[in-house]
This record gives sequence, C-alpha cells and structure tokens, in this order.
Amino acid sequence: MLVTIGKKTRPMRTVWFDAAANVVRMIDQRLLPHQVRVIALRNHKATARAIRDMAVRGAGAIGATAAYGLAQGIGEWKGGSAEAFAAHVRAVYRTLAEARPTAVDPVNAMRTMLEALKDCRGSAACRRESVRLAEAFADEDVAHCRAIGAHGLELVHDDLNVLTHCNAGWLAFVDIGSATAPLYAAQAAGRKFHVFCDETRPRCQGASLTAWELAQQGVPHTVIADNAAGWLMRQGRIGLVITGADRVLGRTGAAANKIGTYTKAVLARRHGIPFYIAMPLSTIDWRLRDESEIPIEERSQDEVLCAWGVDDGGRRVRVRVANPGSTAANPSFDVTPGDLITGFITPAGILTPGDLWNQRHRLGFTEREQT
Amino acid sequence: MLVTIGKKTRPMRTVWFDAAANVVRMIDQRLLPHQVRVIALRNHKATARAIRDMAVRGAGAIGATAAYGLAQGIGEWKGGSAEAFAAHVRAVYRTLAEARPTAVDPVNAMRTMLEALKDCRGSAACRRESVRLAEAFADEDVAHCRAIGAHGLELVHDDLNVLTHCNAGWLAFVDIGSATAPLYAAQAAGRKFHVFCDETRPRCQGASLTAWELAQQGVPHTVIADNAAGWLMRQGRIGLVITGADRVLGRTGAAANKIGTYTKAVLARRHGIPFYIAMPLSTIDWRLRDESEIPIEERSQDEVLCAWGVDDGGRRVRVRVANPGSTAANPSFDVTPGDLITGFITPAGILTPGDLWNQRHRLGFTEREQT
Repeated sequence: MLVTIGKKTRPMRTVWFDAAANVVRMIDQRLLPHQVRVIALRNHKATARAIRDMAVRGAGAIGATAAYGLAQGIGEWKGGSAEAFAAHVRAVYRTLAEARPTAVDPVNAMRTMLEALKDCRGSAACRRESVRLAEAFADEDVAHCRAIGAHGLELVHDDLNVLTHCNAGWLAFVDIGSATAPLYAAQAAGRKFHVFCDETRPRCQGASLTAWELAQQGVPHTVIADNAAGWLMRQGRIGLVITGADRVLGRTGAAANKIGTYTKAVLARRHGIPFYIAMPLSTIDWRLRDESEIPIEERSQDEVLCAWGVDDGGRRVRVRVANPGSTAANPSFDVTPGDLITGFITPAGILTPGDLWNQRHRLGFTEREQT
Repeated sequence: MLVTIGKKTRPMRTVWFDAAANVVRMIDQRLLPHQVRVIALRNHKATARAIRDMAVRGAGAIGATAAYGLAQGIGEWKGGSAEAFAAHVRAVYRTLAEARPTAVDPVNAMRTMLEALKDCRGSAACRRESVRLAEAFADEDVAHCRAIGAHGLELVHDDLNVLTHCNAGWLAFVDIGSATAPLYAAQAAGRKFHVFCDETRPRCQGASLTAWELAQQGVPHTVIADNAAGWLMRQGRIGLVITGADRVLGRTGAAANKIGTYTKAVLARRHGIPFYIAMPLSTIDWRLRDESEIPIEERSQDEVLCAWGVDDGGRRVRVRVANPGSTAANPSFDVTPGDLITGFITPAGILTPGDLWNQRHRLGFTEREQT
C-alpha cells in the first residue's frame, strides 16, 4: 500500500527480501504511527529478533517474514557437507520458529518450504528454490487479501459508515490486509465511504495502526473510543462492521479475535447491522470442536493500567493511567459465536458460518485435521 | 469515606466548610489517583475557580461546593447598606453559577438557599443562616446517598461480581456516592464481593477515580478495558451492573450517562444480568418528553486521541496515542432506553422505569415541571 516518508509517497509491502544482498527489510511497526522507518535485517537471527520484538506482527506478515528468514539463513551457508548443511537449515528453522512460539503462520510457511526443498540437490539450488518459495508465499498472502477485497467490495456502497475493530489491515499481512481489503477495493472503485476506527484498548491498534493505514491511503476515517460504537449504532450512524479474526472454528463459525469484537457483534445484532469477519482460509481451524477449547491469552495487566504514546516533546513514553494501588485483568481476545456473524469474507467468497463446514472440502479441510 | 494520606487514614468528605475561618476545603480531584491533596479556598472566587477548573466535579459535590461558596461569599461582607449587601450576594451567586454554566446543581442549591434567606434580617443573621443552609444541603446529599445504599444493599450478595462504569462514587457527591453506595453498604454489612471497574475511556474515570475510591475503602476490585466487559459477561463472571446517571427522564426511564453505559446495558440484557442505575431524585428530569431532547455533549477530540497519566518519573503527562494525522469523534454521553434498565436505586427505594411516572407525585414531580 502507499506509504509517505518525508515528502515521498510510494507503494510498499510490510516486509520484503533483497535476495542479492541477502537482507530482509520491513517497516518497524513498533514506531508506528509516530514514525515510519524501514529496518534492514542482515541475517536470519536479526530477522528472528524482529519477529520476537514485535517489529513485525500479524499472521500473514510474520509468516512471510519467517519464510524470507529461512531463505536468508540458507543463503548464509558457507559450504560444507550435505549433513552439515541440513543441520544448518534445521537450526535456522528453529531460531525463526522460536521467535513467536504461539503463532502458527511462521511454522506453517517454513514447513511447506522445507517439504518442497526436500528434492533439491546442493545448497545453491536449495538457496534459489528457497527464495522462489518465500516470494511465492508472500505473493500468495497478497493474492488472498486481494481476493478478500474483490469479494467484499459488494458490501461497501457509497455513503456507508463502516466500523472496524483493532488492526487486520495490510500491516498485519504482506499487503492490503483482510478487514481493510474490501475498503481499499471500494476506494479503488471510486466509492465514497467513511470508516470509524475503534481505538481498541488496551493496545490501541485501531487508533494507531488502522488509523495510520487509512490516513496513508487517504481513506476518510474517524477514531472513536471503544465505548462510543454502541451509541453511534443506536443513532443509525454505522451501516457495516468488518473485523479480522485470529482463529475461526470451521465446525461452528465461532471466531476468536481481539477483545471487544464480541461486544461489537452483540451491538450489531441488536441494531440489525451486518457483522462480517474477513480472513484468509488459513485462519480456519478445522480441528477444534468447541470454542471452549480456544486458549484465550491473558496479557500483562500493565497494558490496561498504562497507555503508550508520545508526549508533547515527541518522546515515546508510557503513562500510568489507573490508580497506582489497583490491579487489572487483561483477557486479550474474545470469542464471537457464529450466530452473531453475518458472514465471512474469504478469498473463496462470502460464506455464512454454516457454509464453512458444508463447503469444507472446497475450503481446504483435510481428513488429517479431523483429529 | 476513608482516605489515606501518608500513613494516616481518616474519614473525609469531598468538600467541607470551616465556617470560623471562612475557608472551603476539598480534595483536589485533578491530582487523583496519583496524589491526595486537600486544598483550602480562602474566598468565594477561589471556590468558584475550583469548580471551573475541575478540582471538584460530580453533581452533588459541585452543588455543595456552590452552597458553601455562597455562605463563604456572604461571610466576606465588610458592611454597608442593605442594598449594597443584596448586590454583593447577587454578585457572589453569579460568580459561582458561571463557574460551570451547564450544571444545574450549583444553581439549584444556591437558589434554594437564597429563597430561604429572603426573610433574614441583617447580614449577620443572613450569614449564620447561610452556613446552616449550606451544611443542610451537604448533609442532605449524604443522606440521599446513604438511603441509596440502604435500598441497594439487597442486590449485593456474597460472592457477587459487580460491574461499574465511570465514576458515580463518593467523589462525585459529598460522601458515599450513588452507584457505589450499595457497595459500601454491603461492605459494612460484611458481605464479600468483587467489583470490575470499566476503565471508561476516554477520560478513564473508572480506572482512576473509582478504582482509587474502592482501594481507599479496601473493596476488592479489578480494572478492565471497556472492551472486556462483554467477554466477562459471556463467561458468567459478572452478576450485576450498577452505574450512575446524569439525567433520567421521569416519563420514560431513559437514562443519559457516560459514553459506554448503553453498551453495557445491551450486553447485560443479552446475558440476563440485572442492570441498575443508582441516583438521587434530583437526577430525574420530569420535563423532557423524549430522549431525543437530551443534549449530548461532544467533547474535545484530544480526549480520544491522547491519554493522561504519570510517567515512570512521576511526572504528569499527556501522550498522543492515535495516529498524528487522524481526527476523532468524542460523544461523551449516551442514552440507555428504559426497557434496558432493570431498576433505579433511589433514596425512595428501588423503582422500575414505569414506577417513575406512576409514582411521580411521591418522587417530587410538580405541575410546574410539566412545561
């Protein structure tokens, strides 16, 4: 998508690979929205560190970063026996996989690559093929998001007010994003609409990342406190809700996503507002039988007790907002049951919660995932 | 309620009057929760300034402050003609009334006093009577809150988890508070319960003021992001919701309160959780026929784009949280329709929305308020 740095505006992905120099480059998302800086990661350990330290976040983006990191690590090989090379590749894989142990995308991306690399003869061929595979993974992520946009376009008509929650934009993928894809498609189609960005406490990804993205692309938008969405709905000022998801159960359509998503779904239902979740098919979990099996991460209470930003002098600071003697609970995700979800905007089309299981074979379900 | 300053814990009201010294004293609420400081206001202009600058906020608290300020101003009289004295009293009234032009409580409190002072002969008698009337006003505010607590006690049973939104605690009144009154009554009755405090963005009165209050009294509580309440309800972790209100329509039971209240009411209804509003009878507006007539204040967008707190060095700072190029909407109140409200906890008992109009004569409705 478009990014303005200084006076120059140019299209950019969240992460890309300079194969000739063997350098992974990415936007340092920790500095957003206050500063746009591209960082160069000169070896796979630096790339793993960037994943671990949250310079890059979001399923698609860290999947592509790990894929590039694997190709990068293979490119670091200085020569030796085939066994030593195999051990080197395994070590690179482990370093990248351990950078974000709870995420599935880096592991899935790298396993697919390693499976395809099995037949390569020699480290040079393996290196060439790994670069091709990593680029293919990144391009596929972009293609999925583009398809989400193409299918979701019909939902975003002129004069619509759309509510989003958290960030499932292009920063979370390689490009375009999932929840934002229909918006960018509608913008490209010349439609005039407006987006309300839920602030999304405690980490404020809506106010910071989604608002930054939309500002970069020139999409009219307004940040609101999470408390305000219900009132705007009651006044008829919201016509559509689109969020992303971290995991969607193929059997029930229950969707785990950033805390507060469930609340928006309940509010949307009360007001008869369509509530959609946009996601690639890799987000579908075919295995879990019940939403109670989804682990909900409880993150540090400091996220609730404090806020992060820049002060009037431009310094990055954390401020304690809450009473110093009090503690906080911080469930970071919630689960929205399928019956509150109007549809899923996927690369395979717009699907109802029931469609997921009924069309499971078309959608990539394999019998292996039954257990 | 109890306040700890340094190592000393003692009972305190939010505002009180030292008639002998003619000094109004109050807790400076702008410094809470990070610092507890009592400020001395040595003349009625300083008292008016404290209202204007938000050192004191909340309907009951600013009503009592204005009442004390009027008695204080009368006490400043240096002697002269009866006409000059009357002009002086009018000037004091105006200064205090103009300190918070949108509030009704200061004006109501002072008008009641001036009405009663009409029959006083001489400035000395007038002064004595004004002190008595101001103290009576403050004591009545406390008595109302105590009665709310006595009626609400039955709702707060052992092992209950209560959700509150914003601050309708003793800091907003002279003592005890409205939404907190049933909690303090239950604590006094030895009941064991727990309170979830909604952070209440954008101004975070729940995380700062309500959490501070509950911590001072030793009531077990946990701060949560506004986004988390729905998820806690879905998990069966909340058994009761109590909030305050800024205005309740006597005809319909619609309640205007801090933004986000409506969302909690919708969520409570979905989960079958009782949703109560606690307020003194002075909060009832008998005149308005429809909630659409309630003005909803749109406050500065900076409240949403920024957060306020203390940094790691203990300095009070504002941080910009949102994308620098983005704007925000900040509707600061919302209206919850009567059909989502289980009941109103008032000094006159627990009433359903329908009870308000049916019992209007008992509740203080006068024909004058018909128009």
